Formats: sequence, structure tokens, C-alpha cells
Amino acid sequence: MANQAEGAAKPTVALDGFGAERGFGVLADAARRAAAEGIRLRIFGPPDQLGLEGVEGVEVMPTSEWIGNEEEPVAAVRSRPESSIVRAARDVAEGGAGALATVGSTGAAMAAATFGLRRLHGVQRPALAVLLPVPGQPVLFLDVGANVEVRPQHLVQFAFLGAAFSEAVLGIPRPRVGLLTVGAESGKGTPDVVEAHRMLAAAQGIDFVGNLEGGDLPAGVADVVITDGFTGNVALKLMEGTAKVVTGAIRDAARSSPIAATGGLLMRPALGSLRREFASDTTGGAVLLGLRSAAVVGHGSSGAEGVANAVRLAARCIEQRAVERTAELLRSAHATRGDLAERPDAAERIEA
Amino acid sequence: MANQAEGAAKPTVALDGFGAERGFGVLADAARRAAAEGIRLRIFGPPDQLGLEGVEGVEVMPTSEWIGNEEEPVAAVRSRPESSIVRAARDVAEGGAGALATVGSTGAAMAAATFGLRRLHGVQRPALAVLLPVPGQPVLFLDVGANVEVRPQHLVQFAFLGAAFSEAVLGIPRPRVGLLTVGAESGKGTPDVVEAHRMLAAAQGIDFVGNLEGGDLPAGVADVVITDGFTGNVALKLMEGTAKVVTGAIRDAARSSPIAATGGLLMRPALGSLRREFASDTTGGAVLLGLRSAAVVGHGSSGAEGVANAVRLAARCIEQRAVERTAELLRSAHATRGDLAERPDAAERIEA
Repeated sequence: MANQAEGAAKPTVALDGFGAERGFGVLADAARRAAAEGIRLRIFGPPDQLGLEGVEGVEVMPTSEWIGNEEEPVAAVRSRPESSIVRAARDVAEGGAGALATVGSTGAAMAAATFGLRRLHGVQRPALAVLLPVPGQPVLFLDVGANVEVRPQHLVQFAFLGAAFSEAVLGIPRPRVGLLTVGAESGKGTPDVVEAHRMLAAAQGIDFVGNLEGGDLPAGVADVVITDGFTGNVALKLMEGTAKVVTGAIRDAARSSPIAATGGLLMRPALGSLRREFASDTTGGAVLLGLRSAAVVGHGSSGAEGVANAVRLAARCIEQRAVERTAELLRSAHATRGDLAERPDAAERIEA
Repeated sequence: MANQAEGAAKPTVALDGFGAERGFGVLADAARRAAAEGIRLRIFGPPDQLGLEGVEGVEVMPTSEWIGNEEEPVAAVRSRPESSIVRAARDVAEGGAGALATVGSTGAAMAAATFGLRRLHGVQRPALAVLLPVPGQPVLFLDVGANVEVRPQHLVQFAFLGAAFSEAVLGIPRPRVGLLTVGAESGKGTPDVVEAHRMLAAAQGIDFVGNLEGGDLPAGVADVVITDGFTGNVALKLMEGTAKVVTGAIRDAARSSPIAATGGLLMRPALGSLRREFASDTTGGAVLLGLRSAAVVGHGSSGAEGVANAVRLAARCIEQRAVERTAELLRSAHATRGDLAERPDAAERIEA
């Protein structure tokens, strides 16, 4: 990886040292866990609060400014170059670390990464991807909020970005890619979605399995599901909300009578493992794809294990050469087809 | 209701006599149940298969043609005036019945109703609404697929259509209306959604509670939730799919060990009532709003009770004067504001 320090045997992750809703202790615990597994960390936060001096493999870069969830991300990132997320992104851009991890504001992370890290050649719009906590094989779902409006060629780029990540980081040999829309037939959806379907059906280098409907998403019928950032954001939060309401209703059902309560008690261990399968903590969070370094955004409500998983995912992106492999897939696609990027020259100019 | 036969004390529903996946017996059973409750039925289907001769309050209108799920709805509706759904819609338009009910193709039902029944004054785009089977107070959600692309003023019309239906048919005094998007702040979403928010915040006659995110939908924080037909269709199917996957995973958890199995057995009665709460059969299906008569579209997989619920919902729309009350709310909104319909004159011309 170009941005990774030369000769470093261990992956180095730049971790935002602010933004954990449960406090600095969670970040510090996560850093200790990741460091114990051989991941090097550069944490941008307050040394006194983190209390990590002397921990092998962990370097605290003293930082006192940060960007909160309630701030307008683009303006905040532009005006606060010394804030933790902007410094962490700059550290990755300058080669101090190979990837970025944060559990702070998603908007600030996207803005800092998009401004601070360059886009891959041919990528016009970086996309935010999540691993849906579907029981069994998780599904990579993008875009979940980086772009509320997209054009057909952006959806096609998302397909390539998702497929490359799925193969490189998740180890799925030839990921099946589906397009989220309102019906299985190729003519279903908005004109932009119909056009994206046509382009994807003709694209080389990915295994496009066609249109998917909302109900297919939790059923795991594809490895990668692509959509625009508006639909994706609504869908992601809806899935999380529905799973919560259903499991809550089951908890209520278990309390509805003494007999049901006994049943609930007996089922508790089995339900506990189910809860873990659906918990977003276990997947490490969202990944911003399409940049020259990986950026992982975990939930602000994460515990130490959730933050550690975000760091592990960032480290895995470095180790598996996720960015290089994505670039290779995009290059081979560009070599065979010209319509991947509508105006590759314009994208190139912005990038340079 | 203009289209309802003068002086009829009992509501009369035109029922499509085809389209039930479980066969004609389901339709006939549903007709008997609804008729026993005082609903008059005119069923457009094959008399021999339905076997309803002599049933009090049920009239079979012999029909042998129908439109299937796999057909292109608009072309089929235009070319087959004698098909059951087109004849049923025509019957409502001509005053034979006061509302339409079907469990056949949703697309054909929308096309037949939109072509056959006139739109309410000021409504440019009829919308398909469903009652989400959320535990507790159900949520009216629209549009779930009639319009894959909408403009801001269409979303505003959906808000009025949904609020009027919620108040008239569901009996909710002053329904809270929310706009589905990607964040709580008024600036979140596509430019069209942001503009719709601005218009809704200024609108008279409805209780606009602001933006909702995907996770708010199953939580029941509003009585009516509006969105475009693309997002709505994906969201509806995703909710159904997620509830199915989660309950399936719980069933699997209950089978994972003899102790858990015993627990599952003890919880069965409580879980059964939960399953009923989430079952789409109990809500009667989707309703096409914005026309001068109500049109209810139930699930093709419905059993007799599901079909009967679709008929009951159609009858309730007649009894509660849903269409008249919607027209009143739209009129009062038009009287106070001019931006509800972008081009009311053009809409008027198409309608006439």
C-alpha cells in the first residue's frame, strides 16, 4: 500500500481518539486488545484520558480538538484541521498509518476521508458499505449514506467497489452482486436503476445476479447488494429497527405468562447467540470504499469489542491489500468497457 | 359516495373473482364471511368455480378472463376490457359497487383503478398505502410502489391522502405524519425530500411531525409515514423479510438444544399471537388512495380470512366516507395554500 510506511511488517491503523459514547475507557480497551493481536495503533486523542502510555504498539498523538455528531460535517472538517478525525485522516494520507478507524461522527469521517485521502482512479463517488448482520454469510450493502443521489454509472462503480472488497477482505471468491429495486424484472425501478441494470448486465469482471427486492436483502441471496445512499440508509436503519422491534416483542411475549417466562428462561442461551449474530458490534462498522486507503466507521455506541472490531477491519484491509485489489478490478473493468465512468477525465482532474 | 348506489344501506364491494393463489375456494369462503356480516358483494369471476349461487348478499357477475401477475399491467388492462379486475373497476365507476377489492396482480389493480376510477380533485398521483403490521398501533405507510419517482408536491399530497385515510378509516383523531429520510434534521435527504419537508412544515390541516429515519418506521413514532414509491416498496418488503428472518432464526434457536426446545414449546402460545400481529393477512392489504372510490389490494397468498379482511377494509372505506373526507381535507388545504398541486389546472384537465 502506497500510504503504508515502507517495510512495516505489522499493519498500522490511525484511530480517532474521540467519539466513543461510552467514554475514553472503551477506546483504550479496544487499543489494548488490538495491540495484543499485533496491530500497531496511532491514536489521536487526549493522552491523560486514554492512559495508554507504555502500551506496546500503541502511540498516542496528543489531540484535544474533535468534531461531534451534531456539527455540520463538511464545514467542521474544513475549519478544524487539528481535530482528531482530520489529523487521523492526514496521518493516513502522509503514510504514518495504512488505514483509518473511528467511532465518531459518520459525516465527519466521510468528509475527512474524502478530503484527506485521494480517490481511486476511475471512482467518482466513494460509497459507505456495511456488512449486514444477517445470520450465516453476511451481506455487503452499499451505499448506506455517502451519496443521497446517484447516477447509473455510480451504481456500477459501487458494484465494482463492493465486489473487490468482498473478495479481498471477506474472502468470498466470486461475490454475487445484486441491484436493489422494486421487482425482479430488468425493467423495474427508476429510469436510473433500469439503466444501471443494463450497464451491470454488460459489465465484465463481476458476477451480476440481477435485481433484488427488499425481502431478498436479509435472506442473503447475494454477497454484495448495491443501491443509492438514500435507499440504503433508510433500509439499513429499518433492518436494525425491525430486528430490534421483533426481538423486543419476543421478550415481551416471554414475559406474558409464568409458563412463557419459564420458556424464555430455557431459551435464553440460544437467543443470546442470536442477539450476537444480529448485533452490529460484531461486524466492525461501515467502510468507506473508493479511496486510496480504507476508512472504517464504527458505531458511536460500540463497546471495547466493537471498537476493536473496527480497528481489526481496518487492519484487515491493509493486510489483504484491499485498495490495491480494488484498483486492479477497476482497471481491468476500464480496459474492457468505457462506460464505467461517464467522464473519467473529469474525475481524474478532481482527483489530481 | 358518488359512485355508491343511492339509498343502499349496506356497503357494496366489487370483488375480483380471480387471483387468489390458494384457489377459488378461498374467495368463496371470504365472500360468505363478509356477506354474513352485512357486506354486499358483486364478484367478477367464474360462477361454477365460485359456487356462490343462492348466497344472500352475494351476486356473481360471470367473468372468464383475468390478468395474471406475470403480465405487463398497463398493456393488459388496456387490451382486456372484459378481464375481472377491469370489469370490477368499471362496476365501481358506474355505481354498481362503492369500492373495489382484489387479491390479484397489484400492478393490474393499480392500472385498472387509475384508468377506471377518476382521481380526486387536486390529486396528481394516486398512492399505494399499507398498514404496517407493527405491534400496537399500526402505521399507515405510503407510497409503497405506485410511483417510483415523485416530485415534492406529490409527497405533500401523499401526506394529506394518508392523514385523511388514517382519520376516516382507522379512527385516529389527528394522525401524526412523518417524512421518511436519512436524518432527523430538516436539511437531510435528496433536494426533493428537503423541499417536501419545507412544504409540509408550512402546510395547514395536518400534524407534520418532521423527518423520520428507517429505524423509526417499526417503532410507531408516527401514524402516517410518507415516502416515494421506490423507497417505500423496498422498505415494505425489507420489513417483511427481516421479520421473517428474525422469527425464523428464533425458531432455529428453539431447536438448537433439548432445553431450548422445551422453552420454545412453553413460549408457543405467546409467540403465536406475536406471529398474528406481524401477519399481513390481518391488515387487509394495500389501499390505493387519491381516487374517487377506494381500491383495496390484498396479498395473492391470502387465506379466506385475508381476503375477507380486504373486503372488510373496502366496506369500511365506504361506511366511513373515506373518499369524501379525503376530498374535504384536500379542499381545505387548497383553500389555505396554493403549492399543494404544482399545476392544479393541468391535473383538473386530465381528470375531466
